[in-house]
Amino acid sequence: MGGGVGSRFWPFSRENKPKQFLDFFGTGRSLIQQTFDRFNQIIPTQNIFVATNEMYAELIKEQIPELSDSQILLEPTRRNTAPCIAYASYHIKAINPNANIVVTPADHLILQEHHFLKNIQTGLNFVCKFPTLLTMGVNPNRPETGYGYIQTVEGGTNDNIQEVKAFTEKPNQELANIFFESGDFFWNSGIFIWNVNTIIDAFVKYLPDIATRFNLGLGKYNTPEEKTFIEEQYPMCQNISIDYGIMEKADNVHMLVADFGWSDLGTWGSLHDLAEKDQQHNTSLKCKSMFIESSNNLVALPEGKLAVIQGLEDYIVVATDDILLICQKSEEQRIKHFVTDINMKYGDEFI
Amino acid sequence: MGGGVGSRFWPFSRENKPKQFLDFFGTGRSLIQQTFDRFNQIIPTQNIFVATNEMYAELIKEQIPELSDSQILLEPTRRNTAPCIAYASYHIKAINPNANIVVTPADHLILQEHHFLKNIQTGLNFVCKFPTLLTMGVNPNRPETGYGYIQTVEGGTNDNIQEVKAFTEKPNQELANIFFESGDFFWNSGIFIWNVNTIIDAFVKYLPDIATRFNLGLGKYNTPEEKTFIEEQYPMCQNISIDYGIMEKADNVHMLVADFGWSDLGTWGSLHDLAEKDQQHNTSLKCKSMFIESSNNLVALPEGKLAVIQGLEDYIVVATDDILLICQKSEEQRIKHFVTDINMKYGDEFI
Repeated sequence: MGGGVGSRFWPFSRENKPKQFLDFFGTGRSLIQQTFDRFNQIIPTQNIFVATNEMYAELIKEQIPELSDSQILLEPTRRNTAPCIAYASYHIKAINPNANIVVTPADHLILQEHHFLKNIQTGLNFVCKFPTLLTMGVNPNRPETGYGYIQTVEGGTNDNIQEVKAFTEKPNQELANIFFESGDFFWNSGIFIWNVNTIIDAFVKYLPDIATRFNLGLGKYNTPEEKTFIEEQYPMCQNISIDYGIMEKADNVHMLVADFGWSDLGTWGSLHDLAEKDQQHNTSLKCKSMFIESSNNLVALPEGKLAVIQGLEDYIVVATDDILLICQKSEEQRIKHFVTDINMKYGDEFI
Repeated sequence: MGGGVGSRFWPFSRENKPKQFLDFFGTGRSLIQQTFDRFNQIIPTQNIFVATNEMYAELIKEQIPELSDSQILLEPTRRNTAPCIAYASYHIKAINPNANIVVTPADHLILQEHHFLKNIQTGLNFVCKFPTLLTMGVNPNRPETGYGYIQTVEGGTNDNIQEVKAFTEKPNQELANIFFESGDFFWNSGIFIWNVNTIIDAFVKYLPDIATRFNLGLGKYNTPEEKTFIEEQYPMCQNISIDYGIMEKADNVHMLVADFGWSDLGTWGSLHDLAEKDQQHNTSLKCKSMFIESSNNLVALPEGKLAVIQGLEDYIVVATDDILLICQKSEEQRIKHFVTDINMKYGDEFI
């Protein structure tokens, strides 16, 4: 899934080049390219599909030239994750009626890759045997309020696969503290593993409107007729997330405890937590830097540039070729409002 | 005089493009171009000479293509203002043995230009009649510690030309307050007007070593031999300012009270004082900007770029194509030390 637009990383991310297409850490590969590289170690190229918004079709082809057109599923409008996953499931079923599928966001950070790949293998083995909806849960290392949580039933298999008791939305701090200390709550990573028939059955049961709509296209998936069908039907789908529409309601949900390091890179703060820091907890992404009497700042400039920062504490400093943003870290959730105001003041040039 | 290098405006000014060659206010003309334009209204182009360091020869030709090579006086080494003025005086005397000369820095800001030009005319008329060294003094509007002061003898001519009692170096704050309240102290603008013979006589009397050295070149000025002569002799001149070497010692010094707005643009702070500000006293030079909970900042980005600044107070924020500097206004005098440190850390790429 690589269709998101987020303005939280503005001005690094822009409407025409959102987060998944950016190389945050200066590694030479964007987040979606890293996601492709990661899976391509265990999944053949022809079995990798990207679902994204129409407007990013060219960017996808540019960044992952290995994909053929039939591997790029274009959403004519944004309808959240449930219709996106339904579309991909029907498309894949037309190619392989018994496919096992990993669903993953394209804009997350995964550390300890070999653990990740081992976990994915374990999950695929599990859904081969059992008609379950498997989700990956991350052992929390702090009482984070920015993530949804999954509560599991005590006990579990040898492979650290546990039965799920409940999904919960992002908690407040008090609740997050309780979740963190209890030991049976995990972060919801948004990575799912299931057999194509298990998820389609779940759509039929929990989101029958969406299932009925996609059933109309049987015989058209993975053919030249698919495009027209999707352009007509997709916009009429309910706008709903897979968590809310299916995962929270289904009774065959299991969770695999992830062994890898994970972040949804949802905020500059989360990026700062993960990045390498100097002794004063300053991070500079991609650029050269000199910090003087400054601490706890995150600075990101285009590659090779130099930042000289004096007397600054707890700030985000981000520059692109045409924009400079300086914002207190505590206020970063307001960046999306700044973007709205800038749109009002200067039009869409800087959006 | 357009040979200075200053690192106080780094990274806006760089070793290969110092302050006088920059367009600080986004008017389309650099400070030296503005100086040329200003004088060219009353002084014919062929009577305008630029003295500068050899390394800026090409920049001068590029920025003021109106000048012929013989109007560009190249200093092979830096030797402060006295040798520079001596060289120009001997060069000009070879062209016109009775020339009246205005000596001006090329990197100052002049407001109310028609007052300025009227003052210059008044000064030229005065030095036509009297063999005096005339300096332009600016009525102080605040007890500034960043300027030298000129104390005058009470009384004066109708044209506001007064006899000078003393030159003083940059005062401390206490002294600056006394100067400011006394009413007979003026800022030393560094603009001088005199007859070529008056200043050469002053060199003979107060800086005889320099005069003797330049006398060796008589017959060579304004000829093809000048260049070789200057390359040999100039580096051997004493490194001394005209203020310290002559103005503070001479007994025929007068001062004309300037009617125009003036700043030596010596610091980011002085630039901020002069620039247009919003209600929260923020200034953005050349760029677009949005300030949120921010006050008293000076922001300068390359033309057309956008700065979004949240929660910042009393800072200088300057970005060029390859450098971003964020520095508390109170610490701006340390910028030149940062530049030294950067040179140590990254070599001369950013200098």
